[in-house]
Amino acid sequence: MADPRTDAAFLTRNAAAAQPAGALEDRLEKARSEGRPLRVKLGIDPTAPDVHLGHVVVLQKLREFQDLGHRVVLIIGDYTARVGDPSGRSATRPVLTGEEIDRNAETYQRQALLVLRDEPDLLEVRRNGEWLDMGMDAFLTLARIPKVAQLLERDDFAKRYAGGKPISLLEFVYPLLQGYDSVAVEADIELGGTDQTFNLLFGRDVQRAEGRPEQSVLTMPLLVGTDGVQKMSKSLGNHIGITEPAEEIFGRTMRIPDEMITPWSELLGVDLTAEQAADPRGRKRALARALCERFAGTGEGERAQDAFDRLFKDRAIPTDVPEHELGTDETVHLPALIAEAFGVSRSEARRAITQGGVKVDGEPWPQDVLDTDADRLADAVLQLGKRRFARLVAGPRV
Amino acid sequence: MADPRTDAAFLTRNAAAAQPAGALEDRLEKARSEGRPLRVKLGIDPTAPDVHLGHVVVLQKLREFQDLGHRVVLIIGDYTARVGDPSGRSATRPVLTGEEIDRNAETYQRQALLVLRDEPDLLEVRRNGEWLDMGMDAFLTLARIPKVAQLLERDDFAKRYAGGKPISLLEFVYPLLQGYDSVAVEADIELGGTDQTFNLLFGRDVQRAEGRPEQSVLTMPLLVGTDGVQKMSKSLGNHIGITEPAEEIFGRTMRIPDEMITPWSELLGVDLTAEQAADPRGRKRALARALCERFAGTGEGERAQDAFDRLFKDRAIPTDVPEHELGTDETVHLPALIAEAFGVSRSEARRAITQGGVKVDGEPWPQDVLDTDADRLADAVLQLGKRRFARLVAGPRV
Repeated sequence: MADPRTDAAFLTRNAAAAQPAGALEDRLEKARSEGRPLRVKLGIDPTAPDVHLGHVVVLQKLREFQDLGHRVVLIIGDYTARVGDPSGRSATRPVLTGEEIDRNAETYQRQALLVLRDEPDLLEVRRNGEWLDMGMDAFLTLARIPKVAQLLERDDFAKRYAGGKPISLLEFVYPLLQGYDSVAVEADIELGGTDQTFNLLFGRDVQRAEGRPEQSVLTMPLLVGTDGVQKMSKSLGNHIGITEPAEEIFGRTMRIPDEMITPWSELLGVDLTAEQAADPRGRKRALARALCERFAGTGEGERAQDAFDRLFKDRAIPTDVPEHELGTDETVHLPALIAEAFGVSRSEARRAITQGGVKVDGEPWPQDVLDTDADRLADAVLQLGKRRFARLVAGPRV
Repeated sequence: MADPRTDAAFLTRNAAAAQPAGALEDRLEKARSEGRPLRVKLGIDPTAPDVHLGHVVVLQKLREFQDLGHRVVLIIGDYTARVGDPSGRSATRPVLTGEEIDRNAETYQRQALLVLRDEPDLLEVRRNGEWLDMGMDAFLTLARIPKVAQLLERDDFAKRYAGGKPISLLEFVYPLLQGYDSVAVEADIELGGTDQTFNLLFGRDVQRAEGRPEQSVLTMPLLVGTDGVQKMSKSLGNHIGITEPAEEIFGRTMRIPDEMITPWSELLGVDLTAEQAADPRGRKRALARALCERFAGTGEGERAQDAFDRLFKDRAIPTDVPEHELGTDETVHLPALIAEAFGVSRSEARRAITQGGVKVDGEPWPQDVLDTDADRLADAVLQLGKRRFARLVAGPRV
């Protein structure tokens, strides 16, 4: 806890926004003058178990607060998960069972500790079922706070309302419950992705209505996924889970578009040396190695890199091949895929298969298999003859 | 429980709508075939204690169901009163304390029994706090039912939203709770004024979502108040309470515009004889007498009529004098009022007062009183000299 202005500048260097202006500095100054750490809230809905690099962006920022001596309050939204936050989504989420939620919550917490420091002074993990399982009276009092027009201004609600897509009353309840979390844990600061901006700012309204000091809100940019286009998300299949094998982390990182190396490095807190940064190809390998070291363990970066290189060398697969989308069907008819990918006829493609002229990831494809699961081909390199290659990428799931 | 079609025709003869078409007949038929009475719901929010003629319209219809052998389920909305239903209103209602609600509920119930038959087989009185004080889990499950767009279609919400006037989330919760009442009491039919149409029909949605048979909805027209313009309402001051003295009931009924005699008689269930109906002046007196007999007691109609006639005769006040609005101020400056009402100057008016030339309801006005409470003058006849009269009517309260 040094100079609050220096700390604020450091913390906001790669953030999307600190709102309202000056509030973060005020909180840091207050922490210094009162000699107490700030309570920095992150709320997580355990709707999916695995932590991926998209989550790491915010976790990494929390880690920076910890490194400055502040206390992270990680809220596992076991209760709000039942409601389902529609932020950034265009449809009502499916309902999870209590067991699924508990299992996801445990997995999430264990994985988040790969980024956060697990020390009692620096980390407090809470479940919002502690306080949200309130009586109707308490809830009805809270329900006076949000105004319908205010909720309808939220981007995703506005779009769904305008598009005639249903929004359930339950979804209007969500921001209120999430905001009440800030009251319950006495949050000084709340963190989240930019898609959470409305909810985070709304937490201030709930705190004010309950006579509490209003939190400062710090939002982080959303990490673009391996497809280079959309926000990283498990449901889009463009994610890298932090507990995946080093080979997967390395290989998938190597396939991100070059222009994403800098934002990934910045948002994931990977510092590249000047030498690494100067060489585009070297930069990507350095980023991939650093992510393996961090999440798979010491030495895993070099090991994964060696395996990656050996695989491509041994199997004579070029490391940079054009991509071809697999489409959205669960089953792939291989002759059709080969015909599309390489501009040959289906009968040529079928002949190539039956004569053993097709490989997948360098392995000869069985001559009698014409149909296969799309999952088996995702991210694989398809090879026709000796010289024609295509990397198969999953089409967006529907 | 005779022929369902005959009963339905009788019950709907003065109703605004029976929805959906055919449902009332189906219910009546079902009751007959199962040999059980129907459960006919009326929900009342005890936000104001006194029952006035506007409430009698629906109570009278419930009474007709009782007379046909069906069971009225009167729900005193002690719980929903805390939420506040904005139906037909343009602003959020004030919050009542638990004590006010209890007191209002008791008064309401006692007064409603002046219309309803208080027999165990025919009347069941419930308070919705019995089932609405549910856990958050149960509530969150229910909250999946209403859709925001559906709620915003409700007339008053639509107007407020369009007009930029706030609607709290709490108000969106109201129709859901009210609809759940229908599930809790297993309503076959729900009654209400036309301003409750949305809520009543919404009860069907909640029943369906909970796997219950959907109620038939019967709405009654709203009774126009003594001003002949707006819906009868205590807050507009155009109401007649059913526990008011017979003189009040008689006198205020005598002042309604002639064109309201027929709708009042129909909606309040007052049958006029052919002879009475033929004479406009006699009709109004017959209606006023009937209301006194019914609410103030046997013999009260004749007595109130005599007192009314005597008052006007003795004090030489014409029974039909032009009206003059009192305006909205709490205090009235009498010289200004007289000047406006009779087109004289303020100094003439002041002189008339100080010389004893002004009467109120036939009594000389104190010569030294120039200012007085508006309440003291409401509904009184103001007299200047011997021949100039004006009936003072309350302006709409603001």
